[in-house]
Amino acid sequence: MAVYTEVTDEELQDFIGTYDVGRLLSFKGIAEGVENSNFLVHTDKASYILTLYEKRVDPDDLPYFLNLLQHLAGKGLSCPTPVPSRDGDLLGTLAGRPAALVTFLEGMWVKRPRVEHCAGLGRAMAELHLDGQDYDGFRTNALNVAGWRPLFEQCGDRSDTVHPGLGDEITRELAHLEATWPSDLPHGVIHADLFPDNVFFLGNELSGLIDFYFACNDAFAYDIAICLNAWCFEIDLSFNVTKARALLKGYTSVRQLDSNEYDALPTLCRGAALRFLLTRLYDWLSVPEGALVTPKNPLEYLKKLKFHQTIGGTEAYGLER
Amino acid sequence: MAVYTEVTDEELQDFIGTYDVGRLLSFKGIAEGVENSNFLVHTDKASYILTLYEKRVDPDDLPYFLNLLQHLAGKGLSCPTPVPSRDGDLLGTLAGRPAALVTFLEGMWVKRPRVEHCAGLGRAMAELHLDGQDYDGFRTNALNVAGWRPLFEQCGDRSDTVHPGLGDEITRELAHLEATWPSDLPHGVIHADLFPDNVFFLGNELSGLIDFYFACNDAFAYDIAICLNAWCFEIDLSFNVTKARALLKGYTSVRQLDSNEYDALPTLCRGAALRFLLTRLYDWLSVPEGALVTPKNPLEYLKKLKFHQTIGGTEAYGLER
Repeated sequence: MAVYTEVTDEELQDFIGTYDVGRLLSFKGIAEGVENSNFLVHTDKASYILTLYEKRVDPDDLPYFLNLLQHLAGKGLSCPTPVPSRDGDLLGTLAGRPAALVTFLEGMWVKRPRVEHCAGLGRAMAELHLDGQDYDGFRTNALNVAGWRPLFEQCGDRSDTVHPGLGDEITRELAHLEATWPSDLPHGVIHADLFPDNVFFLGNELSGLIDFYFACNDAFAYDIAICLNAWCFEIDLSFNVTKARALLKGYTSVRQLDSNEYDALPTLCRGAALRFLLTRLYDWLSVPEGALVTPKNPLEYLKKLKFHQTIGGTEAYGLER
Repeated sequence: MAVYTEVTDEELQDFIGTYDVGRLLSFKGIAEGVENSNFLVHTDKASYILTLYEKRVDPDDLPYFLNLLQHLAGKGLSCPTPVPSRDGDLLGTLAGRPAALVTFLEGMWVKRPRVEHCAGLGRAMAELHLDGQDYDGFRTNALNVAGWRPLFEQCGDRSDTVHPGLGDEITRELAHLEATWPSDLPHGVIHADLFPDNVFFLGNELSGLIDFYFACNDAFAYDIAICLNAWCFEIDLSFNVTKARALLKGYTSVRQLDSNEYDALPTLCRGAALRFLLTRLYDWLSVPEGALVTPKNPLEYLKKLKFHQTIGGTEAYGLER
């Protein structure tokens, strides 16, 4: 939850005046997102989200994200749509920060997704993959296999302070994944962070995808692997194959998996689990004393990783070849 | 800024279902208020604020506040209006907290109020005082003259750690105010916390008053005194008599001051300054190490107090008898 930058009414009036969005009626800082400052803005025309990009986002990446959202919205995908200023710019400056105004998406994220939510997610993710195919931006996935070892090295010897034997477990898994990671899968724009809090629903119907600030170019099936990890484990970390099947059936009803993708899925799921294990471990070990935010427990992803290590194949996710 | 209590989509759906407000479309925790958790809720009918009352608010006071808002809205004052549930209740329970749903008020608070904002504030405050006259609730002002000495005693000998000589200054002022505090002024419901962040404007027009959680029964002119302190000093703590005159002219255009009120105003302004000096001093001395919120500097109100101590009379606020 976060508003890192204060914006005065005068600054905001001036900023909103550079857009053709009607008369400003209200703005409220919203307690969401850990990367940026977000404000919900009402005008007499519509509701908008105003985002001020804080230091954790590389300003050079912003055109990739904003042009992507505009591209996807143009294809009919339900996602926040950047509003161009009267001068045609998607990116402006407010309170010394890069800032963008996007359309407000109604809907709520679901704390405990049910089977029908997983099916909707699968369909929307496949649509995102297809809609992004002719997007001409490119952004490397810094958190793909090549990025894991440097991240692990920054954790140094302290992994075992979190869990005895964790360092060895990660070392072995890293070696395995670096040796087996598939490099030739169908690829394009992926969201790379489609956790439940980034997917909005109205009732059981998916109403949109948000928070594209990890979006990048990578294997489509890796996006699926992230979602299987994020959506299909129960609170006790048991794997719910009914949810996984619904997710994969939803996905393949829009975009078929080829046989390489099908075969690679358990490896990709291990990689996705390791990716979140490592970033959470890094955050856990980096959190300063007296910090505002409690980091997420990395061990959740160790347990998920172990599940994927022990399954036979993609059948275990509920999808027959 | 604050959301102290997390609410899941399921809990919220159930709660909103007890009101006749249409279909829930979205809810966002908002980074405002230091006492309660607030959410901006969109339904297909309108926007609302959902408030969860945290421990700093006495639950026994909530009917006073909510019935007052309903009373004032019924008189036509622009303020958040509590929405009754289908069962007719203004107060419900959500996530284990007392909770209320109120109408959303468009408008923005003004960081640097100008003369015309002060005039609008004066008029709205007078309307509030008149509209509240037949409200049958009663709540003592715990932060009136009788409450200041106990508050000061809780600060103990530590006042001088904030500013050398501060303890003596407060001791003298307390003695003076206890001896001279007027007890027979016209009274009724006052807001008691009409700082700029509790007054919304659309352009130069006041659009509403919010945050009635200090409202109580006390002298009307004490409310004016709080506002003269809160609205009429510049950032360098010089007193802007043009703003004060506009505030008082706005007020008296709706409700006349009698001669006792007129004469008492400098004393009331000293009292209001001392009240905020003491509560800020108390908060300053009570803040735990590593706290999330930086307390406001109490010395701002010491300087304001000194201004009121040295003026001749109410003429200095720009209002002729």
